[in-house]
Amino acid sequence: MPAPLHPHTALPVVAMIGGGQLARMTHQAAVALGQSLRVLAAGPDESAALVAADVRFGDHRDLDALRAVAGGATVVTFDHEHVPTDHLEALEAAGTRVAPSPGALVHAQDKLVLRRALGEAGEPQPAWAEVSSAADVEVFATAHRWPVVLKTPRGGYDGKGVFVVRDVVEAASLLERHGTLLAEQRVAMVRELSAQVARSPFGQVAVWPVVETVQRDGVCAEVIAPAPGLSEERAAAAQELAVRIADRLGVVGMLAVELFETPDGILVNELAMRPHNSGHWTIEGARTSQFEQHLRAVLDYPLGSTAMTAPVAVMANVLGGAAAAEDWSGPALDERIHHFMAHWPDVKLHWYGKTQRRGRKLGHVTALGDDVAEVRARAVAAARYLADGVVDPAFAFEHDH
Amino acid sequence: MPAPLHPHTALPVVAMIGGGQLARMTHQAAVALGQSLRVLAAGPDESAALVAADVRFGDHRDLDALRAVAGGATVVTFDHEHVPTDHLEALEAAGTRVAPSPGALVHAQDKLVLRRALGEAGEPQPAWAEVSSAADVEVFATAHRWPVVLKTPRGGYDGKGVFVVRDVVEAASLLERHGTLLAEQRVAMVRELSAQVARSPFGQVAVWPVVETVQRDGVCAEVIAPAPGLSEERAAAAQELAVRIADRLGVVGMLAVELFETPDGILVNELAMRPHNSGHWTIEGARTSQFEQHLRAVLDYPLGSTAMTAPVAVMANVLGGAAAAEDWSGPALDERIHHFMAHWPDVKLHWYGKTQRRGRKLGHVTALGDDVAEVRARAVAAARYLADGVVDPAFAFEHDH
Repeated sequence: MPAPLHPHTALPVVAMIGGGQLARMTHQAAVALGQSLRVLAAGPDESAALVAADVRFGDHRDLDALRAVAGGATVVTFDHEHVPTDHLEALEAAGTRVAPSPGALVHAQDKLVLRRALGEAGEPQPAWAEVSSAADVEVFATAHRWPVVLKTPRGGYDGKGVFVVRDVVEAASLLERHGTLLAEQRVAMVRELSAQVARSPFGQVAVWPVVETVQRDGVCAEVIAPAPGLSEERAAAAQELAVRIADRLGVVGMLAVELFETPDGILVNELAMRPHNSGHWTIEGARTSQFEQHLRAVLDYPLGSTAMTAPVAVMANVLGGAAAAEDWSGPALDERIHHFMAHWPDVKLHWYGKTQRRGRKLGHVTALGDDVAEVRARAVAAARYLADGVVDPAFAFEHDH
Repeated sequence: MPAPLHPHTALPVVAMIGGGQLARMTHQAAVALGQSLRVLAAGPDESAALVAADVRFGDHRDLDALRAVAGGATVVTFDHEHVPTDHLEALEAAGTRVAPSPGALVHAQDKLVLRRALGEAGEPQPAWAEVSSAADVEVFATAHRWPVVLKTPRGGYDGKGVFVVRDVVEAASLLERHGTLLAEQRVAMVRELSAQVARSPFGQVAVWPVVETVQRDGVCAEVIAPAPGLSEERAAAAQELAVRIADRLGVVGMLAVELFETPDGILVNELAMRPHNSGHWTIEGARTSQFEQHLRAVLDYPLGSTAMTAPVAVMANVLGGAAAAEDWSGPALDERIHHFMAHWPDVKLHWYGKTQRRGRKLGHVTALGDDVAEVRARAVAAARYLADGVVDPAFAFEHDH
């Protein structure tokens, strides 16, 4: 029996688990499609709860809360990948469509599961091993050299759960704390890339240009679209890889394939099966944003054009900085937004409404243009001003006359 | 005493009176600015009530309802212009900032007030007179020829309250029904244009390119940006006129100046002091949309860039058509959206979530491109399909290979 349509809009209902900025921006895209996104949020101060009409409060690990938000929804999808697989299987067993399915999603939840699947598929990835003892790590390091990258299979994000270890003693202490880990060869990385693809249940796929993601302390700081200087061959290879993975795993919705670019080619780092920080630029930079596309895909609507709207788009995250400190005495948030708008009338703001804390993703800005250096400088200076209340003097000089 | 900031976001709060599609799209823009738009809606099935988190229910003519929604808001603004002036003055007297102010807004509420003000300012407008009797109309017609256009000073929209009368008998019957009317010369109109400007309390203004608005049965059907073939001189004159009016009336927020283009120049038809149907194209077609700009203006934030994102943008309204009829047996809404997306992957949908009724503005679509005829054909065909379930065979042929 198909789920009922929304009583007022006569359209299907999408329920999203998680109330963060991804749900907030998905809701923003949903407004245009006639949708009223339903959100499961942990509290009223979460980004999406501040803007969505149909918010249910509860924990994503609580099956009853999941059942309640799924009730009457056409499809359940995700703002994050932390929902237990057995809960999702229980929803499916009760007749709810879950997109991506738990069997696909586990590849974004568990790095060991991903490594095995990519290995079976013959896709390019760093050398890896499952390690449970210091001896396992030593064997791996002998084959692939120290330092070795150890990762917790589950629960890591934004650099958390990733450790570069230089010897057996460090490895032993991590294994004691975390149990079984994923060991990976530390690759000779040139830079990080991301290839995003959307896939519908029908099997339609749509790819955006491959982007460069610039990390700072393990957290995404900037995204440059398209990745500067990336050869057409390598870009096509990354897009084809993303499509192959989406097809093989049966992904429904957005898939971000995070990649290491090395002198020899590309290697898969990890996957996200939801809208992803590396695709925020698509809101202004592409004809169809990743958020709208995620909704189209999970609703099994045909996908939209992914053509870029300008030659270059750069997204810069605003991470809680000096201005988020408790003893901050500079301009308050409202005043900083004021100055930001005065200084950069063509840089687009996305502010998530969160309480400001150091290191937290509070918002992002996107700049468009023709020249990558100019566009990047503009986006980064604007984001830095919002985070730290500092205007780069060189930039100010250039633009204040 | 300034209004308190939002307890979670630490940003000012905007309250919008009216829960229609303009409030819905303003909320969508508000999401990016970190705002949680507060909306006064008449019921839970209104467009904005279906998507906004902070919705109060009540009537815009009820001062208590207005006081409740204004409480703690930094500024009160409008989705429509039907709020009584004395209620707005009461809000202002109680310390609430109202944008636009009641003294400005009355020029969008009352066409006689507008005509007098434009006359005093020496701005171009059709010949007009206030008429209370058939004799008044006859005097006017003797000077300016039959037919004469009679308009109710207040409450008209989308062609309602506008009558073309051919003789004294018709005029007398209208005067009996409506009381005092505005008589206007029927001008030799080439086409209708719209010039939009945003103005902040600080006095900053921003204009978009002047557009052509195509009406059908008095209702906006299409908007073409920029107006095809409009001379630079006339476009500049229209923009300067809009800025002069905004300044003179002290408008805060968006102002749309609806214009008649005649062989001799432009004449002011009427004003709207809110986001307007003639500016929906700015969501995709301009760097800053009219909805974001309205929020920036009423918050006294600096205004954003109004540069176009493509050489041509065309918006087509989806008015409830054949598919909104009770006995409709063609594809349901969800299926029509499906086909729309398959057929026009690069035309952007904005669906308002309303109950479908004939003639009702249910949504709009926007197409971008280089060639005005091609872009217009694409937008119009897509809107027609959504309204009537009919694909123009010529268009389908052209694109289905």
